[in-house]
Amino acid sequence: MPEGDEDKDADESATEMVQLILPNDTNTLGNALGGRVMNWIDLVGAMVAYRHSRRPVVTVAMERLEFIQPIRLGNIVILKARLNYVGTTSMEVGVEVFAEDPLSGTHQLSSHALLTYVALDDHGKPARAPRLKLRNEEEHRRFQQAASRRQQRLRERGAGP
Amino acid sequence: MPEGDEDKDADESATEMVQLILPNDTNTLGNALGGRVMNWIDLVGAMVAYRHSRRPVVTVAMERLEFIQPIRLGNIVILKARLNYVGTTSMEVGVEVFAEDPLSGTHQLSSHALLTYVALDDHGKPARAPRLKLRNEEEHRRFQQAASRRQQRLRERGAGP
Amino acid sequence: MPEGDEDKDADESATEMVQLILPNDTNTLGNALGGRVMNWIDLVGAMVAYRHSRRPVVTVAMERLEFIQPIRLGNIVILKARLNYVGTTSMEVGVEVFAEDPLSGTHQLSSHALLTYVALDDHGKPARAPRLKLRNEEEHRRFQQAASRRQQRLRERGAGP
Amino acid sequence: MPEGDEDKDADESATEMVQLILPNDTNTLGNALGGRVMNWIDLVGAMVAYRHSRRPVVTVAMERLEFIQPIRLGNIVILKARLNYVGTTSMEVGVEVFAEDPLSGTHQLSSHALLTYVALDDHGKPARAPRLKLRNEEEHRRFQQAASRRQQRLRERGAGP
Amino acid sequence: MPEGDEDKDADESATEMVQLILPNDTNTLGNALGGRVMNWIDLVGAMVAYRHSRRPVVTVAMERLEFIQPIRLGNIVILKARLNYVGTTSMEVGVEVFAEDPLSGTHQLSSHALLTYVALDDHGKPARAPRLKLRNEEEHRRFQQAASRRQQRLRERGAGP
Amino acid sequence: MPEGDEDKDADESATEMVQLILPNDTNTLGNALGGRVMNWIDLVGAMVAYRHSRRPVVTVAMERLEFIQPIRLGNIVILKARLNYVGTTSMEVGVEVFAEDPLSGTHQLSSHALLTYVALDDHGKPARAPRLKLRNEEEHRRFQQAASRRQQRLRERGAGP
Repeated sequence: MPEGDEDKDADESATEMVQLILPNDTNTLGNALGGRVMNWIDLVGAMVAYRHSRRPVVTVAMERLEFIQPIRLGNIVILKARLNYVGTTSMEVGVEVFAEDPLSGTHQLSSHALLTYVALDDHGKPARAPRLKLRNEEEHRRFQQAASRRQQRLRERGAGP
Repeated sequence: MPEGDEDKDADESATEMVQLILPNDTNTLGNALGGRVMNWIDLVGAMVAYRHSRRPVVTVAMERLEFIQPIRLGNIVILKARLNYVGTTSMEVGVEVFAEDPLSGTHQLSSHALLTYVALDDHGKPARAPRLKLRNEEEHRRFQQAASRRQQRLRERGAGP
Repeated sequence: MPEGDEDKDADESATEMVQLILPNDTNTLGNALGGRVMNWIDLVGAMVAYRHSRRPVVTVAMERLEFIQPIRLGNIVILKARLNYVGTTSMEVGVEVFAEDPLSGTHQLSSHALLTYVALDDHGKPARAPRLKLRNEEEHRRFQQAASRRQQRLRERGAGP
Repeated sequence: MPEGDEDKDADESATEMVQLILPNDTNTLGNALGGRVMNWIDLVGAMVAYRHSRRPVVTVAMERLEFIQPIRLGNIVILKARLNYVGTTSMEVGVEVFAEDPLSGTHQLSSHALLTYVALDDHGKPARAPRLKLRNEEEHRRFQQAASRRQQRLRERGAGP
Repeated sequence: MPEGDEDKDADESATEMVQLILPNDTNTLGNALGGRVMNWIDLVGAMVAYRHSRRPVVTVAMERLEFIQPIRLGNIVILKARLNYVGTTSMEVGVEVFAEDPLSGTHQLSSHALLTYVALDDHGKPARAPRLKLRNEEEHRRFQQAASRRQQRLRERGAGP
Repeated sequence: MPEGDEDKDADESATEMVQLILPNDTNTLGNALGGRVMNWIDLVGAMVAYRHSRRPVVTVAMERLEFIQPIRLGNIVILKARLNYVGTTSMEVGVEVFAEDPLSGTHQLSSHALLTYVALDDHGKPARAPRLKLRNEEEHRRFQQAASRRQQRLRERGAGP
């Protein structure tokens, strides 16, 4: 078995990103532009899939995303990303987004997202990803939920006339 | 009634954006980073809501997003955004994303998205948005579908124990 | 005749770009930096030449450019670009720049420009561009004006001692 | 007379800028995008007008611009900017653009440009600029040529029906 | 005592940043530009001082910085930053920089840095920073080393003729 | 001897860079972020080494850096860089950083830095750099000081147990 292809657990690829909200990231009232945050969500998620698969990856899908709390100019954004599920070629990553205001010391959940990535081989075709080692009940639960979401979507597609 | 608050139709705020995929927008195989495209999707959608409401806006949610076709270095990305629905304060915008390869002349749907925005008043609170004039069957259909999605989500939230 | 080299009309390559003026695009009084707008003018013009020729292009010249109206922080800039003229290898694109203030609903011509591009073959040498199909009086008029400007410049160069 | 408003010579505001051509500044053949260079031309010219007037400035016009030599990825671009003319409120700056390839040691004129700026007072209105001290024949010649160009344009506008 | 001014330990402000090396971050051989990494080192260090002081901060100094290992295009850079020392107004932050190549799974120390920041009050003057709680031998050792470096520099300055 | 490898003096590679401080370069009080300035210091220093060696270069080290004066939004930053020393493969560049406020006409030294670069051959290995021609006492003094710093560091490393 080639190096880098053995099973890995979610801790080995988990990634945390921080970003400082600067003027160009905000609207004229000082609220962060949603697309800037989406860009970071995708980037940190892609790093997780890149670390797990050891290959370049592309984004396949992002589940419904809500912004619960506004993020403001001067806030620090913390993004925590971690593998939930790995199929034959697809990898689902969960991302939690927190907004911290260092001036007041507040720290709140701003958003959470689920993204699916596929690794690419040297010809740009989907590559088999290493399997995900599940080590506790929480990880088994996350894996099952992702697998169910996947089944649900496949059923919905197959249900056409 | 203050100027800018009268009803408007979807053509008045519809927006089309083009972007050229440059090296910094791609992974090492030359595929566009998904987050760059999400950023543009949100930006063009926000312009639609900004034009309709004549106020600064924030992104509230984005529905599930799929990338159907890869986008490549040197491609032109075309994003077409248009209001589907306006409630009291929330506005739903549909965005279609096309990838065009000028070298080969191909042009394909790459993604489509639904985003919800809220306009903000001078105190940063949600502001009432002008109503959306519906002028034909297609616009009525889009409005009803968005209203149904909204009802569905409110029901799901209300269904807790 | 190779695909992509047949004659094309100006609609096939016409391109419209939108940009939102963010803080880094402005001076300390909130006026858009002229160079940011020039960059977008060239980019949208280059997309037109890229789409028409199906080859990478370089900018050869830009005619005198005036900024008629100031563009402000928070404005949406709309750039409409369209082929006027195609010679053996050179392509002239006309670009109109509008500044829209979504807060007030105003929309004004801010600038207009004429740019010349040349497509490059695989060796980086000027490549023959597809001819431009002229379909109405307006398109014939634009073509003739561009051809006259071109003649005028060649005469001026040839007039040296 | 308030400080900063006394006459100044062109050396006091002359500005030289260098830029390194990075991947995002080029097309897929490694040629610099013209608009990136135009952006730098305007920026260095604006710095000259900003230094002379000690006020924020806006770009009013740029004369016809030609790109004589291609600029390549990895090249250093040198932009030399200097006041030619100062009227009541408008300032004309000449910019010379050189492309240097450090690998080969070549250094060539790539472009030259003439830009007009106006300084703004605290209400955003055109502000009187300090007069330009002319110290030698070359500076008198440049001033006269700029004044002639200006007369020529005013005549052309006045020539309408 | 106002909220936010009580003593804090180093864990409360410790910050970890990740960055992906993209084409614009590299020279023509694909090696990361040192200045890009310096920018991130300063940014993550500033976030530590911002979190500890709950005020905007400015960088006062960076100690000698060495790049031990090259960082390559496509690498993930991990920056770990943590307070070593807090004086009356100055804060010393230590930053470790690791370069990870996800393709090969290698992970190496690339650089380490020591930076000093000062928090600013509402008038832009140095503000008193909360004291640093030292909780173990390692933290006492780091504090003493930073205090010694500080003494050493003050002595060197005082030693002038 | 191949062209480009002959001895050169420091004037041949000396480089001056200007930068305008824009909103995204500053903290919420309008003070320039230190890391932005470090990035420019490294970039202008790298250009000097690139011009002298006619090869791609990497940054090896930067000596202790102090920010003497704050730099503000709207300031022009001037960076003057010049070779002090060339060894077999390493090049030391001195950079002086000035902050100019065009509104008030003030111009002050903000920082000075010493950086070491190495040029790379086609295999990414350190390449021999052209020798530095010293033409006056000042240049000899700078060369000797850099050589002494280098000796000092080598001694400190060799002094380990």
